[in-house]
Amino acid sequence: MTAPSESFAPRRDEPLFGRLAIIGIGLIGSSIAHAAKELNLAGRIVLSDRDEAVRTRARELDLGHEIADTAAEAARDADHVILCVPVGACGAVAAEIAASLKPGAILSDVGSVKNAVVEAVLPHVPEGVHLVPAHPVAGTENSGPDAGFPSLFLNRWCILTPPEGTDAGAIARTRHFWEGMGALVEVMTAQHHDLVLAITSHLPHLIAYNIVGTAEDLEAVTQSEVIKFSAGGFRDFTRIAASDPTMWRDVFLHNKEAVLEMLGRFSEDLSILTRAIRFGDGETLHKHFTRTRAIRRGIIALGQEKPETEKLRKP
Amino acid sequence: MTAPSESFAPRRDEPLFGRLAIIGIGLIGSSIAHAAKELNLAGRIVLSDRDEAVRTRARELDLGHEIADTAAEAARDADHVILCVPVGACGAVAAEIAASLKPGAILSDVGSVKNAVVEAVLPHVPEGVHLVPAHPVAGTENSGPDAGFPSLFLNRWCILTPPEGTDAGAIARTRHFWEGMGALVEVMTAQHHDLVLAITSHLPHLIAYNIVGTAEDLEAVTQSEVIKFSAGGFRDFTRIAASDPTMWRDVFLHNKEAVLEMLGRFSEDLSILTRAIRFGDGETLHKHFTRTRAIRRGIIALGQEKPETEKLRKP
Repeated sequence: MTAPSESFAPRRDEPLFGRLAIIGIGLIGSSIAHAAKELNLAGRIVLSDRDEAVRTRARELDLGHEIADTAAEAARDADHVILCVPVGACGAVAAEIAASLKPGAILSDVGSVKNAVVEAVLPHVPEGVHLVPAHPVAGTENSGPDAGFPSLFLNRWCILTPPEGTDAGAIARTRHFWEGMGALVEVMTAQHHDLVLAITSHLPHLIAYNIVGTAEDLEAVTQSEVIKFSAGGFRDFTRIAASDPTMWRDVFLHNKEAVLEMLGRFSEDLSILTRAIRFGDGETLHKHFTRTRAIRRGIIALGQEKPETEKLRKP
Repeated sequence: MTAPSESFAPRRDEPLFGRLAIIGIGLIGSSIAHAAKELNLAGRIVLSDRDEAVRTRARELDLGHEIADTAAEAARDADHVILCVPVGACGAVAAEIAASLKPGAILSDVGSVKNAVVEAVLPHVPEGVHLVPAHPVAGTENSGPDAGFPSLFLNRWCILTPPEGTDAGAIARTRHFWEGMGALVEVMTAQHHDLVLAITSHLPHLIAYNIVGTAEDLEAVTQSEVIKFSAGGFRDFTRIAASDPTMWRDVFLHNKEAVLEMLGRFSEDLSILTRAIRFGDGETLHKHFTRTRAIRRGIIALGQEKPETEKLRKP
């Protein structure tokens, strides 16, 4: 008998949920399936995807214990149902599975915006079912059922945004589920979540998509030159701008107010820097470039990232 | 006798230059000193810095073979002199060392803009001295004499921008020097360099500095929330925005035309995305987010970076 190989997080003796349903088998859905199976977070894991090719691939990859043909079938009798579909699809999927949800079940999602998801999903939640929306702040530039891996959520934040009055026990079980996969859990309102993520995630993505597009359209600089000399800073933007287009389209359509607010502030600030460059105002530039270092120090102090030299020294 | 430990690049039997002078002991200057000594690229390496504290630290770190008190002293009789000072200081330093430069010497620099450097330095270059400006496209978020390490330039591009009519032998020796440190060398005009770098490096830095500043000024989202949830994309911007403020101030002041041109295009493109968000035009967003993936694939194909999942799987 060989000893079981060590996992990235402790494996549970008893599963946390009897039946776990994962609707949508992309990067997040497949990662949850890997983690929940490896760590025994659910006795039975059933996945589904509306795309038949994805379901076939998920069976080949042996994700979870069963691949159901429909979302409703996957959700039937589940104790925890997680919608891992683009934000814009959450309402329709909730309507589709509503009749299959059993009383006491927790309905959750993993969307990057929360207010719009709550508004779209809540009308379909049957009496006795607990809606506990979640947003794991984790991802890679890859998408699809092959992209998932069990440690994706390790040491990453997962934000829960339960509507007011949500059952405390359901919130606690959802928290334990994410903590079980190694995530750090925080609870806040959907409104505040959308504002925080607008600046820490949505605006950076929009800016990254934008600058990569600008680079593509140049006539005087070739695309191969852009690629060749990208180490100067551009490369980091291309990684962000390689994220899933459908997911990000939905994020911007569904967190419009907060993103437009942050975009407005960003553009105002950029005008000041542009003006400083135009008029050769080195003092304004230097002052601005100095104060932005503080936030970086905070991120490194929090252990969310190592300084860059370490990475370079040990490639 | 112990075998010499293996280096990141082949060590030369015979040095390429007799005397190498490095003026300015920051990240780049100290990295060149480390690499040139380790790989025997110069028989004698003399460094200098206008800051006495930096010279003292450089002596403690045993950088090169000698720390001279003045730039002129370091440059005297040198075969290769590299200005590793902020772009805005290159002209003044060139004036200071001009009388010490010996005929046949190569005068170079490492500035991130090239046209302004050539304009500022060329008037001070004595007859018989070869100006071969260089820009190693490499760096980290750290600055100062402690930040350097010998493999900084390994597999990174170094762009040479010799003025028309520059001695071919001097260009070749400069190329060999950078190739000796593991860099990939490309030659282009200073004007074209400034345009290419405006999009691949200068604009990304300005945008990163700007967005980090916008985040700092928010009232509804605390700084600790920004730091906590930065994994969503913002974190990459903070790394770029932690670069040396003086160096970057000088870059923007000295590549004004190209940066303003790129900024104009960037803002135009951002207006289109902003408008698409405001009017809920998901098709425009999706189309834009899809085409930007091509450049990313190019960067990965060129081996300049690995896809992100690999990094995450093997932390």
